[in-house]
Amino acid sequence: MLVNQKDLNFLLYQVFNANELTELPHYQEHDQTTFDEVIKTAHRIAEDYFAPHNRKADEREPQFNGETVSTIPEVKEAYKHYADAGLLNARQEYQDGGMQLPALVHAAYSGLFASANPSTAGYTFLTSAAANVIHAFGSEEQKSRFLPGMWDGRFAGTMALTEPDVGSSLGDLATKATKQSDGTYKLKGQKMFISGGDQDITENIVHLVLARAEGAPQGVKGISLFIAPKFLINENGELGERNDVQLAGLLHKMGYRGTTSTVLNFGEQGKCTGYLIGEEGKGLSYMFKMMNEARIGVGLGAAMIGYRGYLESLEYAKNRPQGRHPSTKSNDSKPINIIEHADVKRMLLAQKSYVEGSLALCLFASRLVDEQEAANNEDSALLLDLLTPVVKSFPSSYGLKANELAIQVLGGSGYIREYPVEQCYRDNRLNPIHEGTHGIQSLDLLGRKLWMKGGKGLQLLLTRVNKTLKNCQTHDALKPLVDSYRNKLDIFSKTTMQLGQSLQAGKVDETLANSALYLDMMGKMVVAWLWLEMANKAQEVFEESASEDDKNFLTGKLQACKYFIEWELGEVHSQSTLLTELNSTCADMEEAWF
Amino acid sequence: MLVNQKDLNFLLYQVFNANELTELPHYQEHDQTTFDEVIKTAHRIAEDYFAPHNRKADEREPQFNGETVSTIPEVKEAYKHYADAGLLNARQEYQDGGMQLPALVHAAYSGLFASANPSTAGYTFLTSAAANVIHAFGSEEQKSRFLPGMWDGRFAGTMALTEPDVGSSLGDLATKATKQSDGTYKLKGQKMFISGGDQDITENIVHLVLARAEGAPQGVKGISLFIAPKFLINENGELGERNDVQLAGLLHKMGYRGTTSTVLNFGEQGKCTGYLIGEEGKGLSYMFKMMNEARIGVGLGAAMIGYRGYLESLEYAKNRPQGRHPSTKSNDSKPINIIEHADVKRMLLAQKSYVEGSLALCLFASRLVDEQEAANNEDSALLLDLLTPVVKSFPSSYGLKANELAIQVLGGSGYIREYPVEQCYRDNRLNPIHEGTHGIQSLDLLGRKLWMKGGKGLQLLLTRVNKTLKNCQTHDALKPLVDSYRNKLDIFSKTTMQLGQSLQAGKVDETLANSALYLDMMGKMVVAWLWLEMANKAQEVFEESASEDDKNFLTGKLQACKYFIEWELGEVHSQSTLLTELNSTCADMEEAWF
Repeated sequence: MLVNQKDLNFLLYQVFNANELTELPHYQEHDQTTFDEVIKTAHRIAEDYFAPHNRKADEREPQFNGETVSTIPEVKEAYKHYADAGLLNARQEYQDGGMQLPALVHAAYSGLFASANPSTAGYTFLTSAAANVIHAFGSEEQKSRFLPGMWDGRFAGTMALTEPDVGSSLGDLATKATKQSDGTYKLKGQKMFISGGDQDITENIVHLVLARAEGAPQGVKGISLFIAPKFLINENGELGERNDVQLAGLLHKMGYRGTTSTVLNFGEQGKCTGYLIGEEGKGLSYMFKMMNEARIGVGLGAAMIGYRGYLESLEYAKNRPQGRHPSTKSNDSKPINIIEHADVKRMLLAQKSYVEGSLALCLFASRLVDEQEAANNEDSALLLDLLTPVVKSFPSSYGLKANELAIQVLGGSGYIREYPVEQCYRDNRLNPIHEGTHGIQSLDLLGRKLWMKGGKGLQLLLTRVNKTLKNCQTHDALKPLVDSYRNKLDIFSKTTMQLGQSLQAGKVDETLANSALYLDMMGKMVVAWLWLEMANKAQEVFEESASEDDKNFLTGKLQACKYFIEWELGEVHSQSTLLTELNSTCADMEEAWF
Repeated sequence: MLVNQKDLNFLLYQVFNANELTELPHYQEHDQTTFDEVIKTAHRIAEDYFAPHNRKADEREPQFNGETVSTIPEVKEAYKHYADAGLLNARQEYQDGGMQLPALVHAAYSGLFASANPSTAGYTFLTSAAANVIHAFGSEEQKSRFLPGMWDGRFAGTMALTEPDVGSSLGDLATKATKQSDGTYKLKGQKMFISGGDQDITENIVHLVLARAEGAPQGVKGISLFIAPKFLINENGELGERNDVQLAGLLHKMGYRGTTSTVLNFGEQGKCTGYLIGEEGKGLSYMFKMMNEARIGVGLGAAMIGYRGYLESLEYAKNRPQGRHPSTKSNDSKPINIIEHADVKRMLLAQKSYVEGSLALCLFASRLVDEQEAANNEDSALLLDLLTPVVKSFPSSYGLKANELAIQVLGGSGYIREYPVEQCYRDNRLNPIHEGTHGIQSLDLLGRKLWMKGGKGLQLLLTRVNKTLKNCQTHDALKPLVDSYRNKLDIFSKTTMQLGQSLQAGKVDETLANSALYLDMMGKMVVAWLWLEMANKAQEVFEESASEDDKNFLTGKLQACKYFIEWELGEVHSQSTLLTELNSTCADMEEAWF
């Protein structure tokens, strides 16, 4: 099972009210039926063409013989089915051949692929994201040259940022771009950790490359963005000669093995043609359009790999008899299924709270994308900007924790490749790293995002939170949870304010030293809020719901909310203490003392 | 590097005073020189014969062709060097050809092998442990038949407990033993997850098998322990005919791949000869001798895999330039090494506190073994019994957390197999599972160990803790840490008392429902105490220490203690609340609500 369909519907149509989006002019042709149809189609493709080779792609990772890369044939087939269903450009406008689908619905179906097979899904996500950048910032000529192939599945896309000596510190990147008389550029440099940087799935690969034009300043302001395809494309749209982009080698990951991770040499023979996107020096801002989408995508992927592991371990626990309750002294009775053991319930409930909470967070972020793009809602844009580090990192941390618990539920079976959860754990370990590590996200959050426009983003968040709290007050079952949450919210708000003051007082390094702790605290507060929102909605619809099944599902939502607030927010107090005292124990540690 | 040698010496000779052991008659032939010699030899063998194939054994895991298992030849060679150095039976008495080495020193050198190559080391540990059981409980004939080969490296040993349908619930195991007229037994049944159950490293394998003799009662009281060698051994000590123990298949683990994990069929053809150890029905108590040693061994292995990852990430952080401090706005300055980033320091300091704390815990437990065995100290035996679940589980949890952080320090490089830390992470994930999961350890601790002999074990622990606190009070630098620790200790003690009362009131299932939380809390309290003990010793020797290097090392100890108490004990308060209120959120969760 890729997701609990009941949960996905609950989130889409009750918590995040996807139907409301169809009132916007941009989405007016849609209704719940068209949304469901797309999701159903995606579900079928994910189950039929992605899930079946998830293990195989892990066992038989892509090979490089010095000339070409080979992947198992199932990947190419899956990619084709994905493209043929119109899923690569589903969010594009009708006039461009798209379905004009909301980001919320797009996220819902994307998640199914991440659950089924994150490695193969990786190629599709990268292509859509790269195409979006070209669509948003490319010239008409660039669009007409590259987008048709990217959207119909003949081409794939990559984002080539990282360099071996530079890592995440993009301001230092050294790839050079030299302008030619015809307006094109010659690129020269090496990029590393480029996902999908080479493969045999598509006939062409469109690399988006960050490079520094000759004479451009040091730092991020000197960075430009270029298109460097593997094969040049002729005027008539046909593939032309091979561009000077060479695969230097594959990197061999712990998980996510099906997606190639590459070292690429651009212009080793001085012949790598690159096409400037937009203006020189604005490369990073264009790339961040893609990065922000990619960060939501990473969060969603992490949530869904976590979700998959949760479902696998739940299924196992329901069917595995072993042991008895501690109070049962004799071995005469039959063993109980392990789902009856309190500690197994804890591990399942924790997983449920992490992964359903993470999915809710990513869908919420996607809804904000819709509000921003289709309704021009600036508040939504600001809130999304604030929350992006959280959306990227909370699911990456807690989805992985969920996978760790899934292994533990299965015990010895969880640790062997004969069962699926160990792969989830290996795959998911990538997510706290790529598209900006936790450390980078936390600096972005505490050093920048919180204070944009005078801290308005946080105000917008708190307004929404308070609205939820008010709604929850009407349900007796939720009152103790609201009280407990309010207490933590107060601590969180005061902590934030104090950190802001200390930044204003110029204590930049001291305040940001423990930013990772702040990121974790804020992640828990945001997800706990979403759990209250879910619990509130569950209470609202409980009476109307006809079936016993539905009632059980809604009761589970309430219980998971209870768990998350009682068990996971306990740390907020001690985290706040460390943060507000600007605890310097870590920062004070000197290299020689280790 | 396998360990920080300065740290190992500090722990052995200053914190745990290994020299004091030489005052015991059993160890009187030893002195620090002999201890150091053994450790030095072990270090050399670990570096020369174990570390070099750690990655290779992971990449080329053992293969089963339906007839025989093949491992890479380096494993056999390493095993031989280990045996030839007398390390398999180093703890045995001189009269048996051993070195009569203290458990403390044995743990110190064993840890080096776990750091270098946990998979290959696994074979040696299993053999020593199985031999110990035969030595302790076997008949003279059994000893003379099996021990020489196990001690000189011709034979290996296993512990065959788990069965496919039974898992950890040993009381339900179904393997049968039928007594024959000659006093031997015929065994019949299937065992699963048997480490080293087959291999091509040694000429024979001595399986210790739990089985139920015909007519024996259900439950744990009906379990007996048998020796079932792969090859029978003739009177003259030579290998005889093949016993009916068949490899049904290999299991394919996520990590620890070099150690075979097997499914074994005993007596498929009705011809599996087993020799009863000791008396019928006492099998579990014999096996627990081995299990308790194995549990300390698991803790030690987890600590040392964590330690290895820590050292690798420390080395990387010292040499990898990337980025600048947040307050540095321009890119004109040179990038700093990442060890200068506060968040990287945090990840390194956390690792240091986990792994050095875990190693201290395991060495402490080993010293208790010495006090128990060589000094007949019943208090030490009781304290060891109490702490065994903690010794097994704290390093398994926190060593793994350390490995997770090691990956994060390396970023993208941490996630690829071109660097060593991802293997540490995969290897270490086994440790929270085997030899009793966290859940099982926590039930053992809270349901049984704490209350043995009227709770005397805990009293013994608290007496030691209070002594440390008193010593620490004499150092100004430690006073705030002592105050903070005392506050948590008070909470911990009250929590324990309340749980004891609630067990006495018959609320067994309710009290044990959250036992995993208690296990974590107690683990942190015990390790924080050991950190104070280390910090106290560091303060004591600081003035006498001559070199700048030593002073830096001792300052680092103090800082890690500070970190552990300030950053890791914060949760104790909220954990205590959940425990004392007998929080039932997890236990109340019904299967249908998931």
